[in-house]
Amino acid sequence: MAIITLTTDFGEKDHFAGATKGAIYSELPDVKIVDISHSVSPFNIPEAAYIIQNAYRIFPKGTIHIIGIDSEINQENKHIAIKLDDHYFICANNGIMSMICSEIAPEKIVEINIHDKIQTSFPVLDVFVKVACHIARGGTLEVIGKTIDAIKPIKNIVPYVNDDKTQIIGSVIYIDNYGNVVTNIKRSFFETIQKGRAFEISARNYKFKKIYNKYSDIVNFEIPEDRRHDEGKGLVVFNSGDFLEIAVYKSNTATVGSASSLMGMRIMDTVSVNFIKEEIYAS
Amino acid sequence: MAIITLTTDFGEKDHFAGATKGAIYSELPDVKIVDISHSVSPFNIPEAAYIIQNAYRIFPKGTIHIIGIDSEINQENKHIAIKLDDHYFICANNGIMSMICSEIAPEKIVEINIHDKIQTSFPVLDVFVKVACHIARGGTLEVIGKTIDAIKPIKNIVPYVNDDKTQIIGSVIYIDNYGNVVTNIKRSFFETIQKGRAFEISARNYKFKKIYNKYSDIVNFEIPEDRRHDEGKGLVVFNSGDFLEIAVYKSNTATVGSASSLMGMRIMDTVSVNFIKEEIYAS
Amino acid sequence: MAIITLTTDFGEKDHFAGATKGAIYSELPDVKIVDISHSVSPFNIPEAAYIIQNAYRIFPKGTIHIIGIDSEINQENKHIAIKLDDHYFICANNGIMSMICSEIAPEKIVEINIHDKIQTSFPVLDVFVKVACHIARGGTLEVIGKTIDAIKPIKNIVPYVNDDKTQIIGSVIYIDNYGNVVTNIKRSFFETIQKGRAFEISARNYKFKKIYNKYSDIVNFEIPEDRRHDEGKGLVVFNSGDFLEIAVYKSNTATVGSASSLMGMRIMDTVSVNFIKEEIYAS
Repeated sequence: MAIITLTTDFGEKDHFAGATKGAIYSELPDVKIVDISHSVSPFNIPEAAYIIQNAYRIFPKGTIHIIGIDSEINQENKHIAIKLDDHYFICANNGIMSMICSEIAPEKIVEINIHDKIQTSFPVLDVFVKVACHIARGGTLEVIGKTIDAIKPIKNIVPYVNDDKTQIIGSVIYIDNYGNVVTNIKRSFFETIQKGRAFEISARNYKFKKIYNKYSDIVNFEIPEDRRHDEGKGLVVFNSGDFLEIAVYKSNTATVGSASSLMGMRIMDTVSVNFIKEEIYAS
Repeated sequence: MAIITLTTDFGEKDHFAGATKGAIYSELPDVKIVDISHSVSPFNIPEAAYIIQNAYRIFPKGTIHIIGIDSEINQENKHIAIKLDDHYFICANNGIMSMICSEIAPEKIVEINIHDKIQTSFPVLDVFVKVACHIARGGTLEVIGKTIDAIKPIKNIVPYVNDDKTQIIGSVIYIDNYGNVVTNIKRSFFETIQKGRAFEISARNYKFKKIYNKYSDIVNFEIPEDRRHDEGKGLVVFNSGDFLEIAVYKSNTATVGSASSLMGMRIMDTVSVNFIKEEIYAS
Repeated sequence: MAIITLTTDFGEKDHFAGATKGAIYSELPDVKIVDISHSVSPFNIPEAAYIIQNAYRIFPKGTIHIIGIDSEINQENKHIAIKLDDHYFICANNGIMSMICSEIAPEKIVEINIHDKIQTSFPVLDVFVKVACHIARGGTLEVIGKTIDAIKPIKNIVPYVNDDKTQIIGSVIYIDNYGNVVTNIKRSFFETIQKGRAFEISARNYKFKKIYNKYSDIVNFEIPEDRRHDEGKGLVVFNSGDFLEIAVYKSNTATVGSASSLMGMRIMDTVSVNFIKEEIYAS
């Protein structure tokens, strides 16, 4: 049976997420429902885009992803369904999908047009669930919408590169549960520009000259454990989604601090990479 | 197979919710368990009442709802099971169900009396799960309790109307994830008193003369998007549960603010509606 | 079909927990996945140990528990799988399991050695899920690791008792959603030392001479309800996990306060029990 995932800004307290599941089970008792997140910041589209991009591809082909962020329909905010990478996505046409679509071309995009049959003040429950169950039963996108060619973009998806390719200017797109600061600079993009050159990464007044493979690579295991002071040290890694991330080893915003709290970094802040002219083949 | 839902104040961190699911699956491996909320404020009965009232009716008939708020049994706080609207509810007799029961008459109420067989310091897990699984297997309420006629009420369920029906005095019963302020004034109740008259809604020193159909109805789409300043504007709607709600367009307590934060409104605050004598047929 | 539980510090917002479920369903579409907690404080091993110890035994025999706290592999932090009490546990060898293992001897411990086949920057998803699905399909631990004899301990698991057994010195190991303060003094341990003697429990400058059976035992039901002032009163109970707990009746950190907030108690604080010489057979 199909899997339907939920990514919303409903929060953990309100009845919205539970009610959405009730509506799905009322239509399809045997479907599997998986929460990806209900704690997206209210109306925060880039955050939702980052979360769904990282989560969706781990699910089996054919999974249906409901994204409930800023989904009230109006003349500027239509509902869409997208087939991409053999997954289905149902959301408002407000930019959420532009991050994924900038990497993988959608197979099909439709603007949902079943609203004349539905009176709603809760579009995720009334519209998105209907569409998701239609797809889960094997229905096609054409039946529930008219094909469109393009979706609404969001800004700052792709970092800026200067003309002589000596600098990448990226920005912070997400801060995770550990306070780690995720930029929009992906590993493949970085390596294409880098071409093996040495580099210096700047975030606020912090500088980094190395990208680690994993967080604990900053630890010097030759020093006895009780004499090390690695917790709270800053470092740069490519995270599990292959985004350049400024992290703090064993960070905890409430105790040792985190990259976000210690360096004072926030969403939309600039992170730049300057490449050194000489080609030093850094490992 | 039956669905069992969970609405509790266990929070997201402790083992209580997970353990409750373990107990259910130990008795009934094939049941479906759905979290409605575990983030009800501790011991907050009106909040739980609001959440369960809005969520339950979206689930299929026959669903069993466990409500774990202030459920420690003692001489004043007995355990009950209710059949109402073809749904089952299991909770303490502490007022949680009085909001639903004021709208729909229960088919049956029993005071659970299986406690002599159970020693418990965790009544949701030891008693409510047992009762839920009994019902899920098709058992009757009579087997696990003795029929009672009435349940404990909670205050402030129904708004006050003055004698000449020119004023409704309601109160704030819930503040949602977006900081929207939900009152106890339901659409049907409002319209019965209104009889088409114009009105003015007062909340603190804010006044509203219109109830919108949806949040984005406050937006003037004729103004170009980059010159609008609608985020953070206050408005009144009937929300998806048909409760009168004071909202802020695209609210976010952490950024643009919310109805709760901007207007300084809290649970139990008064919201009043004054009807204008002349019958103006406002649309 | 098997149950796989998840206990992590991933938080409620990030995609990590959802992605982990996607990976499990990709391998085993029919498994049941249960969240125990994703809100363990980042890298907080004692907290995770407390949560999993209380939750696991409520699940059916054969359940597989993934614990994702500080799970990045390095030369000091290996991955292990344990069979204990007919349950399976998969985690890093960082002390999480030492609390359970101090009470129940493991049947088998293996150090997982499938990493040569897996490149990972997300060990829960890449390694723990693989191992969990292997076990769920009936695979043995020997296939995925080499047997080891002992696991890494954590400190402060067991309270200290003085030589003449007149004093237990315990410490706070967990603070729950209600702000209740849980110590490492278990009922069985307490009673073994107590041998029926009267006692005085000290936490900061608060003293308690009685352990209640349940929270509401502090209420004097002979006083009419509207003249009682029991909310916010401190008391000591053995909680549902049989740990000595300093609690506040109907506590809520945001309103009446909690044991943690009112008494200023924190993780690792000392709680001591002094036994009175005369053998008074307190009930």
